[in-house]
Amino acid sequence: MKLQIEELRSEYDKNQDRYIAELGEFLSIPSISTDPKYLSDCQRCAAWLSAHLEKLGFKSEILETTGKPVVLAKRVGKPGSTRVLFYGHYDVQPVDPITGWASDPFKAELRGAPNDPNRRIFARGAQDNKGQLFYFVKAAETLIQKGALDLDLTLLIEGEEESGSRGLSASLDAWQGRLEADALLVCDTGTLQAGLPAITMGLRGIAAMTVTVKGPAKDLHSGVHGGVARNPATELCRLVASLHDNQGRIAVPGYYDEVTEPSKTARDLANKFPLTAEQYQALTGAPPLGGELGLTPAERRGFRPTIEINGIHSGYGGPGGKTIIPAEAFIKISCRLVVGQDPQRALDRIKKHLVANTPAGVQISFSEERAEGIAVALDPDSNLARRAASCLKLIDGVDPLFIWEGASIPVVAELAKVSGAEPLMVGFGLEEDNIHAPNESFALSQFRAGYLYSAMILQELGS
Amino acid sequence: MKLQIEELRSEYDKNQDRYIAELGEFLSIPSISTDPKYLSDCQRCAAWLSAHLEKLGFKSEILETTGKPVVLAKRVGKPGSTRVLFYGHYDVQPVDPITGWASDPFKAELRGAPNDPNRRIFARGAQDNKGQLFYFVKAAETLIQKGALDLDLTLLIEGEEESGSRGLSASLDAWQGRLEADALLVCDTGTLQAGLPAITMGLRGIAAMTVTVKGPAKDLHSGVHGGVARNPATELCRLVASLHDNQGRIAVPGYYDEVTEPSKTARDLANKFPLTAEQYQALTGAPPLGGELGLTPAERRGFRPTIEINGIHSGYGGPGGKTIIPAEAFIKISCRLVVGQDPQRALDRIKKHLVANTPAGVQISFSEERAEGIAVALDPDSNLARRAASCLKLIDGVDPLFIWEGASIPVVAELAKVSGAEPLMVGFGLEEDNIHAPNESFALSQFRAGYLYSAMILQELGS
Repeated sequence: MKLQIEELRSEYDKNQDRYIAELGEFLSIPSISTDPKYLSDCQRCAAWLSAHLEKLGFKSEILETTGKPVVLAKRVGKPGSTRVLFYGHYDVQPVDPITGWASDPFKAELRGAPNDPNRRIFARGAQDNKGQLFYFVKAAETLIQKGALDLDLTLLIEGEEESGSRGLSASLDAWQGRLEADALLVCDTGTLQAGLPAITMGLRGIAAMTVTVKGPAKDLHSGVHGGVARNPATELCRLVASLHDNQGRIAVPGYYDEVTEPSKTARDLANKFPLTAEQYQALTGAPPLGGELGLTPAERRGFRPTIEINGIHSGYGGPGGKTIIPAEAFIKISCRLVVGQDPQRALDRIKKHLVANTPAGVQISFSEERAEGIAVALDPDSNLARRAASCLKLIDGVDPLFIWEGASIPVVAELAKVSGAEPLMVGFGLEEDNIHAPNESFALSQFRAGYLYSAMILQELGS
Repeated sequence: MKLQIEELRSEYDKNQDRYIAELGEFLSIPSISTDPKYLSDCQRCAAWLSAHLEKLGFKSEILETTGKPVVLAKRVGKPGSTRVLFYGHYDVQPVDPITGWASDPFKAELRGAPNDPNRRIFARGAQDNKGQLFYFVKAAETLIQKGALDLDLTLLIEGEEESGSRGLSASLDAWQGRLEADALLVCDTGTLQAGLPAITMGLRGIAAMTVTVKGPAKDLHSGVHGGVARNPATELCRLVASLHDNQGRIAVPGYYDEVTEPSKTARDLANKFPLTAEQYQALTGAPPLGGELGLTPAERRGFRPTIEINGIHSGYGGPGGKTIIPAEAFIKISCRLVVGQDPQRALDRIKKHLVANTPAGVQISFSEERAEGIAVALDPDSNLARRAASCLKLIDGVDPLFIWEGASIPVVAELAKVSGAEPLMVGFGLEEDNIHAPNESFALSQFRAGYLYSAMILQELGS
């Protein structure tokens, strides 16, 4: 018997206090994955979550990896059921600068009166991703209790998303048999504003590296050697300039060769993203004038690859001047990739281009190469996208946005591949949640929307 | 009665121990001009030097400036004498890193046996410039004692050369009447190797500034915003790349307009500088492949202006990656200028060019502009150059090199202007003296050569 949206609303409202209290317990464990000194907290967090899921009726295991443990919890439906794989992560970002926090990051604090529409829970992980995975867990709990969960549901909750998902990645092939699914649900995304749901239709792939240009053995006097020795900083700037043409297009030979063009439907949906140039400027302090001429910001973000300079450093940077030719210069670059592009091939093409353009007198080298992940795209005409949209509309009667985020969650592409499932990315995070920053929080109204959507989509996908 | 070179040699050898002991006393005063906490040491150093010059027969004054005091010492010859102005500085560089020193930087230490040709005195300032000005003082002492100083000699020893000569610069106009001269002697330069004397024929002018390109109000996520917002680091690199063409020529409109071409004599002499590409590579770790195509390294260094990037900084520079579009990027640039070029006009042309090439979506700004000094050139066909060459040849029978150093000593151009005198720059410093670095030292053989040259040129210029 399926539960209707009204029943779910009343079930949520009846239980919200308990849900938030349980979430507070989950948030109290400082499961920071990037810092080795929190290893036992991460293990404790996995154990807490696994025990919690057992109580709800899942058969849960803690799987060791080369890194932090993974919680794998299954609830098997009747034979032939649709198989749904849900992905989330229990690890959180570090809390520094700790002085920026108004309350203890590991002691959840509710702010706002019960009837305040912007009532929020503050803690590290309140949204990313403990809060978002927990509304899904609570929705599953409700369906289990009411006998309305009519599918095979597997929860895969890892503990290293904030530090590269390496343990999970390395284990995926070995676990393939346990992860095969018909749909992959991911809730680690967001939307534009409260009350306006969104389906994330695409994530870009990512690759990154460090490029170093070396010249003289040590910094040289810019008077004695200026005009004699080549300047590595100048040469590196010239190489960076060679990466794009005057139209903002990437000038690395072959870079666009495997780029898949979006369908007309996808392009039209992406262009419905309701952010004007003025709003973008207000949000970021800069106008949306980057990337390729002749494409809209939404098209550039969703469907086009980039090469961005994340940092460049060489020589003197303090007050006043220091008249040197620096011995070396380096850039940190990262590439966002679209469907069809291979991360390592993209890096190789850039390397080949840079080597070919490096003049005699300086040496170029490459390090910290990371071919991190391929792009993911959901077909807007797919059955899965349509069913998700209909569920989202039920929450507040508002049609969802279709967002091509531009960002990357490399493990999603890997999970899609190993599970054989189409990924469905719906999350309820907002910019103002301050994830990865001090005073992270999550609005209870968004937690509730996530709960309602999760319950609806699980019933929709069930038989 | 003029003293011959043999008499000077024997006079020096007889007195060397005393000269070096006195120099040791001079070196023991930590006259670091850039650090305000050494102000009283600078004052004490000026007082020591002034008193020393008084004892030798000069009429010496300590002149206050807006910065450190200047020692102005005069010895007047018979009416109608040639007027010689000597410039030096008693201030020294800081000593950090102090851990790099093998002995106390302010306790002079002699290393090497008395008959070791590379016997050296170690201390901060041993060469730059206390050691170099002190051999001149000792040469003047000898000539005075022997009744062989037959000219008006003015010593102008400042205390802020290592921190911009601002006090002296600001006073020059007021002091003009006391500084008028027929020749300006400067000993703050060097040569290529011991036993091979050199006349510095030219110094380049210098101008510098900081250029900042700003984009978004804060660092942006390179996934969400990549291809949407302009990247200030990329745009700054493109601006840097626009400063030069593919032939290494400066592409700033008008930059070469006032450049004076060197005479054939000057060019030929500059090209006699005996440093092969292999030697340059061994010295610096890089081949001499910078600057403009089609000119020799000596021509590029001596007669052509530059725009060098002394530093560039933007965004992330630590280990691994950080996927951001940095909020801003800046460069520190300095220009070496040749005869004819005005420093402020050079900066203005660069600014105009950069502004014209800055795309919409980022803002460019300029700060720390320093139009520090114009170029200086000695005419190789001049009487002064020839007389200096003949004196230098007497030391070891070796013809001097004519060096266009490429570096800048802005105060020399100002002194040449205010004194009305042609500058003659002869110094005995060597690369291995480690000036501005730990373990600064000066070879006694070079100190002796400086003494001999100083005595000879003073007699040559006298009537």
